[in-house]
Amino acid sequence: RRFGDYLVSVFGPGRRTATPGHPEIEMALIELSRETGERRYLELATFFIDQRGRGWLGGGRFNSSAYFQDRVPVRDASVVEGHAVRALYLTTGLTDLYLETGDAALLAALNRQWHDLVAGKLYVTGGVGARHNAESFGQPFELPNDLAYCETCGAIASVMWSWRMVLATGHARYADLIERTLYNAILAGVSLSGDRYFYVNPLASNGEPELLSRGGCRRKEWHLVACCPPNVMRLLASIGHYLATRDAAGVQIHQYASARIATELAPGQAVALRIESAYPWEGRVRLGVEEGSSRAWTLSLRVPGWCAGASARVNGREVAPARDGAGYLRVERQWARGDTVELDFTLSAHLVEAHPWIESTRGCVAIERGPLVYCIEQADQQNAAVPDVEIDAGAPLESAWAAERLDGVALIRASGWAVDTTAWKDRLYRPVSPAPAPRRRVELTAIPYYAWANREPGAMRVWIPRGPAAAR
Amino acid sequence: RRFGDYLVSVFGPGRRTATPGHPEIEMALIELSRETGERRYLELATFFIDQRGRGWLGGGRFNSSAYFQDRVPVRDASVVEGHAVRALYLTTGLTDLYLETGDAALLAALNRQWHDLVAGKLYVTGGVGARHNAESFGQPFELPNDLAYCETCGAIASVMWSWRMVLATGHARYADLIERTLYNAILAGVSLSGDRYFYVNPLASNGEPELLSRGGCRRKEWHLVACCPPNVMRLLASIGHYLATRDAAGVQIHQYASARIATELAPGQAVALRIESAYPWEGRVRLGVEEGSSRAWTLSLRVPGWCAGASARVNGREVAPARDGAGYLRVERQWARGDTVELDFTLSAHLVEAHPWIESTRGCVAIERGPLVYCIEQADQQNAAVPDVEIDAGAPLESAWAAERLDGVALIRASGWAVDTTAWKDRLYRPVSPAPAPRRRVELTAIPYYAWANREPGAMRVWIPRGPAAAR
Repeated sequence: RRFGDYLVSVFGPGRRTATPGHPEIEMALIELSRETGERRYLELATFFIDQRGRGWLGGGRFNSSAYFQDRVPVRDASVVEGHAVRALYLTTGLTDLYLETGDAALLAALNRQWHDLVAGKLYVTGGVGARHNAESFGQPFELPNDLAYCETCGAIASVMWSWRMVLATGHARYADLIERTLYNAILAGVSLSGDRYFYVNPLASNGEPELLSRGGCRRKEWHLVACCPPNVMRLLASIGHYLATRDAAGVQIHQYASARIATELAPGQAVALRIESAYPWEGRVRLGVEEGSSRAWTLSLRVPGWCAGASARVNGREVAPARDGAGYLRVERQWARGDTVELDFTLSAHLVEAHPWIESTRGCVAIERGPLVYCIEQADQQNAAVPDVEIDAGAPLESAWAAERLDGVALIRASGWAVDTTAWKDRLYRPVSPAPAPRRRVELTAIPYYAWANREPGAMRVWIPRGPAAAR
Repeated sequence: RRFGDYLVSVFGPGRRTATPGHPEIEMALIELSRETGERRYLELATFFIDQRGRGWLGGGRFNSSAYFQDRVPVRDASVVEGHAVRALYLTTGLTDLYLETGDAALLAALNRQWHDLVAGKLYVTGGVGARHNAESFGQPFELPNDLAYCETCGAIASVMWSWRMVLATGHARYADLIERTLYNAILAGVSLSGDRYFYVNPLASNGEPELLSRGGCRRKEWHLVACCPPNVMRLLASIGHYLATRDAAGVQIHQYASARIATELAPGQAVALRIESAYPWEGRVRLGVEEGSSRAWTLSLRVPGWCAGASARVNGREVAPARDGAGYLRVERQWARGDTVELDFTLSAHLVEAHPWIESTRGCVAIERGPLVYCIEQADQQNAAVPDVEIDAGAPLESAWAAERLDGVALIRASGWAVDTTAWKDRLYRPVSPAPAPRRRVELTAIPYYAWANREPGAMRVWIPRGPAAAR
């Protein structure tokens, strides 16, 4: 607060005018304003935000005004651009400002930018910020795998922003992205041991150490630019805050995890729920009401975007699991202690494909199971080198719990081929051969992407080339 | 020479010790030594070269000793690494040193590095240096198309090096790479008008302007770092020097172009040849002897590596067009004025494919015709957007001379499809659909890669996805 007061004393209308070089202060000031009830912090945040778009920042060889999100005024923005963490910390602060002010032009700009993100600049893991250069967003569809930057902090910033978009709009699409990002892009940023960190999170690795412009396959204990490790710690420590919201109408569950949720819908209207689930390994979620309240209220349950089929039972009685326009299953009743809701989200391994305009995923598929994106890592393959692998997209995927592997994961087994690349020795290009390359059948074992790089260094890939349909 | 003398007075054993940060001086000093016959310039070059590998250079955040080719001693080097132009200017100077000294360890190291280049770090255009970051070589198989750096100067450095490897070994593989690089990577660096230049030469473009980390589709009149434009001018002005060599045994033709070659095999043994050809548009080359010499000598003619079939006639009589182990057709006789050699290299458009480990070319083919690599640019497509295009790899390719287009080029027409991507609107990933994406037949028109970006800005790609075999 003293720091906030100091900032207010230095910057603002009639005082110094400046645009912060790394957005963060906006959300901090708005939060301080909420805590203290004092508008001057909010006003200073607004002042900083309204300075943007004058191109005061940037101009160096590498750092343009786009890098600093200073190219266009915030309400005119239509794309996420420049330094990814800066960009999404700013949109996070802007969403906070919208939540305080209801400024419709701001929300419209935020929606345009969020759409730009998910329709062109998002990795399947939820990772953001494709480029090593300037740690920035690339152009739409510029999403290389081996050269992906995907800074852990970028993914965290994405969650922070989407969370506020949940608050602003109540739409499940934002909670879906939070889930995808948490379980994949962010969780991969920290080792299973919890004490080693990735700054850069590639979606493919040749098993070589980290080098300039290319992520490695070994997490480090610390980083020179030390943002990611504490940011991961902070996020994981505050994960409970992302599970649910409440308003006068009831409670909204956005993420599923074993938890106890206790709140008041209104003064004296305490409610409490217990959630039990082996999610994301299983799609079954059990909610038990521990405290009801004297009036009817609505329990809103997100139906995950990845979920192709769901069923729901309230006190053992089947209810239609239809999601509404916002992506939630709503059950309104006068909840009483002992009431139960059982959700069953169909959770089976399946293949996903990527937009044909993305160069790095062409002809490839990725394996997903529930919110988890999978990868194949060399350590799990019996007799195939990861770079040579192709998957048989027509063969079934089989899941099996492996308690001993990687602290316990559901493995996925797929059928595929190992392509014989010996004929390619010493050259990169050759006339197209009418004969298909020699290949042999292999079984592939996939692990959740978050768990990679916890064993000996080795090649890894999320996107797996599809074998020839004719070879089946 | 005064500058050379000054350098010799400052640097060397017992004087100052240093490693040049940007190799170039090595070849300059050796050339000066050749011109003047004074060994001290050669000795200083040797001194500079032998300092390398001590890691004196580098150590900053971005510029490692590998960036400066100062990681390992030159005779221990096995890979091309770091800043591409620096790396290849150094290997060029090292090859000069080998040519002066016959140091076998040096040639062995150069061969290892050349192999590392062509087996893992070379674009199909001959372009080198995949990364924008540090303008450097990537790891093997790291060859993105849209994000390719491929600095024009890197390609020029590659030609300079390979030329000296021709001199050192007499093998056609180096002349093949020179040809590929000249006609594609380098020639694309300058506009048809001759006054606009690319620094960065991507192999795919979305038609957007140049941005940090991504090449554009408009050449510039000049560049802030002004190496490429004059380097192109110098190379094109000296192109005649790369066509042929002579030794006591005869004349070796390495590149085909209409030209007159006059030399002396020995004092008083003048020979002269005239070469006429519409190469690279046509595979026919006619050599006429204008001056013979009194003794027999060998005319060596490179059979291009791209050439699947060739025929040769001497004075109208068919001779076996077999290339020897070095890749040359050799004809020894007492050549007389009026003798003719007619070569016919089968030159037809064909598809090439890339090593399966390269991410950016997976499932794609490129079109080549003779030494020219082709691309499809939006301006030539009638009813298909370049990003949506697939090629029918089973359909014939048809070449047609278009005198009016792009100062005269052989166009190549292919059959393919335009994929309907409307179902992808607003998302990047989706469950794999068993049904093939809707697509319609289109005709594709390809132009030589060197000629792209000379009309209105538009998308371009060298590597074209193969359509589904089943759709044929």
